[in-house]
Amino acid sequence: MTSHEAARSSSPDFGAQLAAGAIPILPFGALEQHGPHLPLATDTIMADGLARRIADEVGGILLPPINYGQTSDNAAFPGTITLSFDTVRAIAKDIAAALAAQGARGFVVVNGDFGNQAPLRQAAREISEQLGIGVLVVNYPGMAEIAAELCTTAPAGLGLYHAEEFETSLVLHLRPEDVRMELAVAEYPVYPPTFPAVLTGLDKLSRSGVFGDPRPATAALGATLMDRLADEAIELVNAFLLTLPVQDP
Amino acid sequence: MTSHEAARSSSPDFGAQLAAGAIPILPFGALEQHGPHLPLATDTIMADGLARRIADEVGGILLPPINYGQTSDNAAFPGTITLSFDTVRAIAKDIAAALAAQGARGFVVVNGDFGNQAPLRQAAREISEQLGIGVLVVNYPGMAEIAAELCTTAPAGLGLYHAEEFETSLVLHLRPEDVRMELAVAEYPVYPPTFPAVLTGLDKLSRSGVFGDPRPATAALGATLMDRLADEAIELVNAFLLTLPVQDP
Amino acid sequence: MTSHEAARSSSPDFGAQLAAGAIPILPFGALEQHGPHLPLATDTIMADGLARRIADEVGGILLPPINYGQTSDNAAFPGTITLSFDTVRAIAKDIAAALAAQGARGFVVVNGDFGNQAPLRQAAREISEQLGIGVLVVNYPGMAEIAAELCTTAPAGLGLYHAEEFETSLVLHLRPEDVRMELAVAEYPVYPPTFPAVLTGLDKLSRSGVFGDPRPATAALGATLMDRLADEAIELVNAFLLTLPVQDP
Amino acid sequence: MTSHEAARSSSPDFGAQLAAGAIPILPFGALEQHGPHLPLATDTIMADGLARRIADEVGGILLPPINYGQTSDNAAFPGTITLSFDTVRAIAKDIAAALAAQGARGFVVVNGDFGNQAPLRQAAREISEQLGIGVLVVNYPGMAEIAAELCTTAPAGLGLYHAEEFETSLVLHLRPEDVRMELAVAEYPVYPPTFPAVLTGLDKLSRSGVFGDPRPATAALGATLMDRLADEAIELVNAFLLTLPVQDP
Amino acid sequence: MTSHEAARSSSPDFGAQLAAGAIPILPFGALEQHGPHLPLATDTIMADGLARRIADEVGGILLPPINYGQTSDNAAFPGTITLSFDTVRAIAKDIAAALAAQGARGFVVVNGDFGNQAPLRQAAREISEQLGIGVLVVNYPGMAEIAAELCTTAPAGLGLYHAEEFETSLVLHLRPEDVRMELAVAEYPVYPPTFPAVLTGLDKLSRSGVFGDPRPATAALGATLMDRLADEAIELVNAFLLTLPVQDP
Amino acid sequence: MTSHEAARSSSPDFGAQLAAGAIPILPFGALEQHGPHLPLATDTIMADGLARRIADEVGGILLPPINYGQTSDNAAFPGTITLSFDTVRAIAKDIAAALAAQGARGFVVVNGDFGNQAPLRQAAREISEQLGIGVLVVNYPGMAEIAAELCTTAPAGLGLYHAEEFETSLVLHLRPEDVRMELAVAEYPVYPPTFPAVLTGLDKLSRSGVFGDPRPATAALGATLMDRLADEAIELVNAFLLTLPVQDP
Repeated sequence: MTSHEAARSSSPDFGAQLAAGAIPILPFGALEQHGPHLPLATDTIMADGLARRIADEVGGILLPPINYGQTSDNAAFPGTITLSFDTVRAIAKDIAAALAAQGARGFVVVNGDFGNQAPLRQAAREISEQLGIGVLVVNYPGMAEIAAELCTTAPAGLGLYHAEEFETSLVLHLRPEDVRMELAVAEYPVYPPTFPAVLTGLDKLSRSGVFGDPRPATAALGATLMDRLADEAIELVNAFLLTLPVQDP
Repeated sequence: MTSHEAARSSSPDFGAQLAAGAIPILPFGALEQHGPHLPLATDTIMADGLARRIADEVGGILLPPINYGQTSDNAAFPGTITLSFDTVRAIAKDIAAALAAQGARGFVVVNGDFGNQAPLRQAAREISEQLGIGVLVVNYPGMAEIAAELCTTAPAGLGLYHAEEFETSLVLHLRPEDVRMELAVAEYPVYPPTFPAVLTGLDKLSRSGVFGDPRPATAALGATLMDRLADEAIELVNAFLLTLPVQDP
Repeated sequence: MTSHEAARSSSPDFGAQLAAGAIPILPFGALEQHGPHLPLATDTIMADGLARRIADEVGGILLPPINYGQTSDNAAFPGTITLSFDTVRAIAKDIAAALAAQGARGFVVVNGDFGNQAPLRQAAREISEQLGIGVLVVNYPGMAEIAAELCTTAPAGLGLYHAEEFETSLVLHLRPEDVRMELAVAEYPVYPPTFPAVLTGLDKLSRSGVFGDPRPATAALGATLMDRLADEAIELVNAFLLTLPVQDP
Repeated sequence: MTSHEAARSSSPDFGAQLAAGAIPILPFGALEQHGPHLPLATDTIMADGLARRIADEVGGILLPPINYGQTSDNAAFPGTITLSFDTVRAIAKDIAAALAAQGARGFVVVNGDFGNQAPLRQAAREISEQLGIGVLVVNYPGMAEIAAELCTTAPAGLGLYHAEEFETSLVLHLRPEDVRMELAVAEYPVYPPTFPAVLTGLDKLSRSGVFGDPRPATAALGATLMDRLADEAIELVNAFLLTLPVQDP
Repeated sequence: MTSHEAARSSSPDFGAQLAAGAIPILPFGALEQHGPHLPLATDTIMADGLARRIADEVGGILLPPINYGQTSDNAAFPGTITLSFDTVRAIAKDIAAALAAQGARGFVVVNGDFGNQAPLRQAAREISEQLGIGVLVVNYPGMAEIAAELCTTAPAGLGLYHAEEFETSLVLHLRPEDVRMELAVAEYPVYPPTFPAVLTGLDKLSRSGVFGDPRPATAALGATLMDRLADEAIELVNAFLLTLPVQDP
Repeated sequence: MTSHEAARSSSPDFGAQLAAGAIPILPFGALEQHGPHLPLATDTIMADGLARRIADEVGGILLPPINYGQTSDNAAFPGTITLSFDTVRAIAKDIAAALAAQGARGFVVVNGDFGNQAPLRQAAREISEQLGIGVLVVNYPGMAEIAAELCTTAPAGLGLYHAEEFETSLVLHLRPEDVRMELAVAEYPVYPPTFPAVLTGLDKLSRSGVFGDPRPATAALGATLMDRLADEAIELVNAFLLTLPVQDP
C-alpha cells in the first residue's frame, strides 16, 4: 500500500487519508548520547525508520517524529536533552486527542527510547480511558530474540542494547553518513548488584556510553535487523488494526 | 562560522561545542493546515530554515525541531495536530533545564507558529526566574515590514500571514517539492468586528485555510525573504549573545 | 440603559438581571508600580472606569474588580504584587464557570494590565472549549491610535504606555485625589536591541518606573481619552452581544 | 498610628512603608448570596472594614481586597460567584511570595468568608514551609461569643452566621446604602442530622438564604460589634507582630 | 448485621456485598507521634476501631485503612510521616471514583487524624460535584462532649486531644499490647496568643508530644468511650444511609 | 537482627532506631481481585510478608503498608479499588520526603503489585533527583526463576503470575484463614496478539480472574517460595545498604 507523510501532505490530503481509514503512526524518539560513534538522534532515526516500514505496509499516515524523549538515565552525558516523564505523557495525549477529534480510527506510536516506555504506557492508559481511540505502542517487538539470533557479539545484559552492534548496524543501514565507525569502541558494564532496582546514571556504568560491542556492525546486518523488526511490528500492527472499528464509507 | 547539527553530532562532539561556547538553537514548529497547496509542516520548515541560517552565522548548535505546536485556532482543519499551551510550555522548559544542566551559556528558540508565542513567552519567564539561563525567543522579526516591502499582494490584515505569498515563497525556496502551486487559491477573510478579541476558529474566516494570495509566490522571492528575515534575526541573536556570560576557557 | 453593580446587588436582584439577559462585565486590574505620581491601583482604576462605561451603555452587570494581576515585569519595583500566569488564568476560568452555571449568556472581561493579556487569552480559549459560554476580553481597543491622536508627548515606543500622559490623564479624570502631579517626571527608556524578545525587568529600562512624559496630563484629556476608549469598547461589546444566544423570555 | 492604603499609594511610598516595618494586611472577601436584603459583597465589606481597623491600629499597609472567595456551598443561589479551593490557595500564596520578595516582615490575611478558611489555612502552611514569611489568618476572632453577648436573636446554630442580625448590623454600620431592611426576613434552618458531616447546598436549608433573624439589626449594634471584633483582632495581630523579626533600620 | 472485611473478601464476595447495598467504610488514619507511651499508629487504630463498630452495626464493607495522613503539625517529632494535603485528597477521590464505578450507593470515611479533616472535606466536595456518589466523613462525632463527661482529667484546650486520657484509654481498649503506661507523662501546653491562627509546630508547645494527662487512662474507660463514639457515629451513618438511593434488587 | 514495627513504636523509639541507622521499609500493596479463592488484599499480604523478612534480617524499620495500589487493569472486577498512577507516585514521594527530613539514610519500598512498578520507578527517579535520599524498589526479585523451579503448574505466560500456584501458595503460607481452596479454579488466558502492547482489561482475558492453576498450591510451597524470595531480596537490600552513607554515631 501507499503510505502518506503528514509533514509533506496538505490539509485536504490528510483529511482524505483519514477519511479513507488510514492510521496515523508517530515515531517517538530522543536526543540522547550513543557513544562516540553514533549520532545523538539515533533513537529517532531508528523509530522513524521502523515507522516508515510499518506505514508503507499498512498504508498508514507517517506523522513527523518527536525528536526528544525521557532520557534522564543518560543525563550526565553531553547532548542528552531529556524531557520529563510528564511532558512525554502530555505530548502523546495531546496528539491522540487531536487525532481523535479529527476522526482517526486508531493511533500507533513507534517508540525508539527505553525511557519513553513508561510515560507512553501511562499516556495510553489515559487515552483509552478518556478519549475512546485505540492506541498501540510499538517498542521494537522481538528485539532481544532478533539480536540474539543475528548479532555476533554478546549483549551487555539486563536488556540494555545501547550503541552496540544492534543499534550501530541499524544506523549504518538508515543513516550511514552520521556514523563514525573509526571511533567505535566496545565497553561492557559491570553492573552493581543493585542495578536496575536502584536508579543509576548510566555514566556510572560506562565511560564511553557504549553498552556492548559496536565494532562488527554493518549496514547489511542493519538491513536484515530492520526487516526482522519490521516483520514483527507489522504483524502486531495488523493485529491491532483488526480490533479497530471499520471506517464508515 | 560553522554550525553544528545536534541530531547528527555524537555526544562528545556536542560536549566540545558547548564547552567552546556554542549556543543551542531550537526550531519550534507546528503541524498545521496551510491551505491546499502547502504542506502541514510549513511552520516547521520555515523555523528550521531560519534557525539554520542563524546557526551558520553565529556558530550555533542546531537542535532538532519540535514538529508540533499550539495550533488550536486551526483545529477544525484536517491535519492540524495541536499541542496544548501547557505542553508547549513544558517542552521548552524541559529542554532549557537540560541545556542549563549541561552548562549552556544561553538558549535561542526560533518559533514558526503564532500559537506558540504565548506559551514560549511564559516558558521564557519561568526559565529566567528558575533556571538562570538566558533565553531568546525569535518570532520572525520584522516580518510585517519585510512582507510589506517585498510581497506583491495585500496581506490579509490583523497580522495574519498564513499560506499566502510570504509563506508560500519561503516554502518554495526551502522545500519546493512539497508545494503544489497548481492548487494555490487566494482568499481574503472578512473579519467579524469581534476578531481577534473573541477567539474564533479560523475555519470560520476562510474556507480554504488561506489568508491572502499565494499565487504570485516564487522561490526567488522566498530566498530574498529568507535573507531579510535572517538579517533581522541574526542581528537580534548577536545582541543577545552580547548579554550572555563569556564561556570559561 | 441601567447598569447593575453586582457587589451592591442582592442575590435575587442579580438573578433577575441575569434572567433578563444582562451580561456580566469583570474589570481585571493589577497592583503595580506606576511611577512616583500614580497610585499602585492605576490599572484597576482604569479597567473599572472603562467597565462602568460599558456596563452603563449595554445594561451590563458590573462585577467587582480583580485588584491584582500578572505584573512580573515590574516585580523589582516596590508595591508590585504579582499573581502568576496560572493564577490569573484560574481566576478567569472559575468566574466564567460560575457565571455559566448561573445561566449567563456571555462574559466580558475588561483588562487593564498588559501582563494579564496572555493568561486571559488562554483562559478564554479554555472557557470556549470547555464551558460553552462566549467570552470577550477587552484590552483598551484602539489605544495606540487614540493616544497618537490626542496626547501631546511622544510615546515610549514598542507599545509601552506606562505612567505617562495617557495613563496619568485617565487617572486624573477617574481618581484625581490619588495623583501627585508634583512628583511626575518624564523618562524615556533606551531599549536594548533584545527587547522585548528577551524578558527584561522594566527596572532595567526606567529608574522612575515611568515610560514617557506624564507632565502635560490633565483630567480634561483623561475624560476625552475615556470617551474615545469607551466608544471603541462599546462598539466591540455590541458586536459581541450580537453573537450571543438570545435569552429565553 | 497611620495606616497606608496600598491601592492609593505610589510605588516609592509603598517601599518606604515596607522598609519602615509596616505589615501588609489583605482583606479576603467573597461575592456570595446574603439573602434578599444584603449585598453580594457582604463578606468583602466586613473583611475590609475589619482590616481597616487593624491597619489603623498597627500602622499596617491595607492591601486592596480579594472580591471573590470559595463559596460553593451557596452556589445554587444567584450571584454567588465561587472560586475553587485551589484558586483561593494560589492567590494567597502568590501575594505572600511577592510580599516576601519585597522584604515584608510578615503578612496578615483578614478573611470574611467561611469557605476561604480551609484554603487559606493550607496556603499558610505552604507559605510557612516554603517562603519564610510569617502569616496570620484572622477569621473574626471571638465572633460566636460576641454575637451571643450582643445580639438579641438566636443564632441559626452550628456556627452559621449568615445574613442575620450580626452580619446585617455590620453592613448597616459599614455600608448602609446597600442594605434594604424592608426586605429582611427571618429564616431558621432545620438541619438534617447529616449536616455538616455531609456537604449540603445551603439552598436545601434556607429558601431565602438567611440563617437567623436579621430584622432587629441596627447600625449602632454594628458599630459595637465591629469595635469588639476589632479589639479581638488587634490583640491577635499585636501578638503576631511580636513573633516577627524586627526590621533592620 | 454482618460486616464484611474487604481485605479478606474475595472479588466475587465483594461484588455480592455491594450488589446487596452494603456501604464501603474507609478508616483514614495517620502515622504520627503520640508521646512516649502510645504507638505511632494511634490514629489508625482508633479510626479502624470505630469503623469496625459502624460496619458491624450497618452491615457495611470495612475497607483496609489508609495508614498515613496529613500530620505536618507534628512533623518535627520522630516517626511522624506526613502525606501532603493534596495526596490525602487524591487518595480519597481515587477510592471514591473506584467505588462509584463499581456501583456503590455511598461511601463513608472514618477519619482519625485532625490534619486529614480539611483535605477530606475538600475531597468530599469534589466527589459530590464530579462523581455522583454520596460521601460522609465521620470525625469522632461528639468527642469533646464525651470526653468532658467521662474523662477525669482536664483537656489541653483549643480542641486538642492528643495522647491524653481520651486517646490513651481508647488505645488501651483496642491495642493494649502497644501501650507503655509506665512512660505516660502529663503535659499541658501554654498556648501562645497566636495559636491556632498562626500555624505552629506542636513541638513548640509540648516537649513530650502529649497534650493533657494520659495517666488515669484505662481500658475500661476506653471501652466506654468507644461505645459512646460508636453510638454517635452510627446515628450519623444511619441518617446518611437514609439519604442514599435504594439499591436496585 | 531485630526489626522494628513503626506502627507499634512510640515516637522516641522510632527516633532512636533511625538515629542508629535502621532503614525504613515500606510494603506497597493493593486491593485487587485475585480470583474466587484469594482475598483482595493478596498483594499487600505478600509485600508485607516479604518486607517483614527483610526487616528482620537487616534490622530495618517496618512501615505500615499502603493497602491500595494502581490496579486499573483489573478495574472491571469487583473489589479492585485502584489508585491513579499519580497518587501512587505522590504517596511514595511524600513518605520519602518525610523520611529524608527525619534523617533516614535510605528508603526501601517492597512492592507487591505489578501496576505500582511504573509509578514507583518514576517516584524513585524524582526522589533521587530532588531529595537526596537513596531509594530501592524491590519487585519480587527472581520471581519468574523461582516459580519455574518450584511450581508444578505452567505459568500463564507473559510474566503474569496472578492468583495461581505461586501467589496462592504464598497466601496459604502467610494468611491461610483467608484462602478458600475449595473455590480455586484454573484458567489459562488466550492472549490476543496485541497483548500487552495494547492495554487490555484483564477481564477480557480471564473470566475467573485467575491466570494459571492455583489448585496444587500448598502452604509448604508458600514457605519455600517466601524463603527464596527473601534470600534474593535480602541480598539486594544488603547491596543497597552498602551504597548508603554511614550513620554518624
